[in-house]
Amino acid sequence: MSIHKSSKGRKKNSSESRRNPSSSRPAPRRTGKSNDADEGWFYGDHAVFAALVNPHRKLKRLLITKSKIAGLDSDRRILVEATGQFEIVDKDVISAVLLENAVHQGIALLPYPLADLTIDDLSNIESQSLETVAVLDQVTDPHNVGAILRSAAAFNVTAVIVPDRHSPPTTGVLARAASGAVETVPIIRVGNLSRALDQLADKGFWRIGLDGYADMLLETVSCDLKKVAIVLGSEGKGLRQLTSQKCDMLAKLPISPGIESLNVSNAAAIAFYELARPR
Amino acid sequence: MSIHKSSKGRKKNSSESRRNPSSSRPAPRRTGKSNDADEGWFYGDHAVFAALVNPHRKLKRLLITKSKIAGLDSDRRILVEATGQFEIVDKDVISAVLLENAVHQGIALLPYPLADLTIDDLSNIESQSLETVAVLDQVTDPHNVGAILRSAAAFNVTAVIVPDRHSPPTTGVLARAASGAVETVPIIRVGNLSRALDQLADKGFWRIGLDGYADMLLETVSCDLKKVAIVLGSEGKGLRQLTSQKCDMLAKLPISPGIESLNVSNAAAIAFYELARPR
Repeated sequence: MSIHKSSKGRKKNSSESRRNPSSSRPAPRRTGKSNDADEGWFYGDHAVFAALVNPHRKLKRLLITKSKIAGLDSDRRILVEATGQFEIVDKDVISAVLLENAVHQGIALLPYPLADLTIDDLSNIESQSLETVAVLDQVTDPHNVGAILRSAAAFNVTAVIVPDRHSPPTTGVLARAASGAVETVPIIRVGNLSRALDQLADKGFWRIGLDGYADMLLETVSCDLKKVAIVLGSEGKGLRQLTSQKCDMLAKLPISPGIESLNVSNAAAIAFYELARPR
Repeated sequence: MSIHKSSKGRKKNSSESRRNPSSSRPAPRRTGKSNDADEGWFYGDHAVFAALVNPHRKLKRLLITKSKIAGLDSDRRILVEATGQFEIVDKDVISAVLLENAVHQGIALLPYPLADLTIDDLSNIESQSLETVAVLDQVTDPHNVGAILRSAAAFNVTAVIVPDRHSPPTTGVLARAASGAVETVPIIRVGNLSRALDQLADKGFWRIGLDGYADMLLETVSCDLKKVAIVLGSEGKGLRQLTSQKCDMLAKLPISPGIESLNVSNAAAIAFYELARPR
């Protein structure tokens, strides 16, 4: 199951690809100090090879070191060669296009983004008996958003919904932390989170906000919930009031009273695990 | 419950403190490029104030900006003033002692380490009906080890045991990710992890290795287990063979077959949650 496999996604990606056929741009120059924002590169084995395996993912550039390509197993070597546009470069050339200290393992890929999806696209997903989506309210750390995507893939969470503003791009640090899950779990970026929560209700989702001050434990939430949107706030601040008010119920995890909160990706992992548990 | 409250810990820390009475060293100079390793500094609100609250934690230096101290609530201001040795400095002075891009929020503390603990110290912990310790086999990322400590504190895990070699120091990035939990959950550093697993068996711990290839789900592990050592391997590589052989049983989390593994801190959080669940 993947809503990336929609015909819409396919069409958009291939048209983008036609507009920009494989190019041979000059190698990037080393700028000394890296930028604050990456420019959309993926790096590291998991993120890059997951992108190369995804038929809906089109690429602009693929940089690989000589020693990296020599050490690939045959499956991965075929993936690289099948692109027809990989560039063998020195590892410093790869470092130069990435944020400082990025652990790139000798490979980096500049992809076109996947097709943008909306809440309405959720209806195109093949139906399944249980459906969970995650809604992130101002989770800004790309490590956390990436780890949440990875756990979402592990526990069959259909999509991760984030506000367009203040959310990290689906590249670089996020893609590496997601360890390939950006190819299988769509991130739906919305202009207005509050409106997205309304739309989810219209589609039959129960909106459960995770809140340390809730009276109810997540594990005691009614087992009749087939469609759940689990809503997670930023660490420390938690859910914003408006977000909280939009939830049908608030629930907490059974953490020690002396502890303010969990890391948000750890809280998400436990929530996904709990919601996927047979009831 | 905290095994930091042993008289041993108290004695060692106070003698260290006497050897180094509050000093007024010259302010650090900005070095341009930060070092690869931090020198033992804690930074950020959670890590620093948790250390200031811990009566067993002695400090060498405390740096704080003028605007930070002006904005503190009265409880925190009292904690800072009670040290009698805080230094009001420019924020760049704080940045200069930390790794590049450390988000210090205007405060940094250079503490003495807490007393070293061994597996034998586990016996000094007040007994409780259920006891869990975590054993980390080559988890090297300080963000992950810190997040694991934070989850350990949330789910009453008694201690986290790591090999002395290749494990990150209990400072800086780790302390910040732990969000104060380095003060309450001891890290036990051992020379030989395999021997530590033997010692844990001698103390009555069942050693459960978390392994994606196990036949058994963690949730189905016998409910008679009062003392559990949950053993987690590095991401990707998993448990080393020798570590795996020392475990009494291997168990897995119910993740989607297409997913190789979870982020190790997310896997730990789920395991702690599952083991703390009433059975």
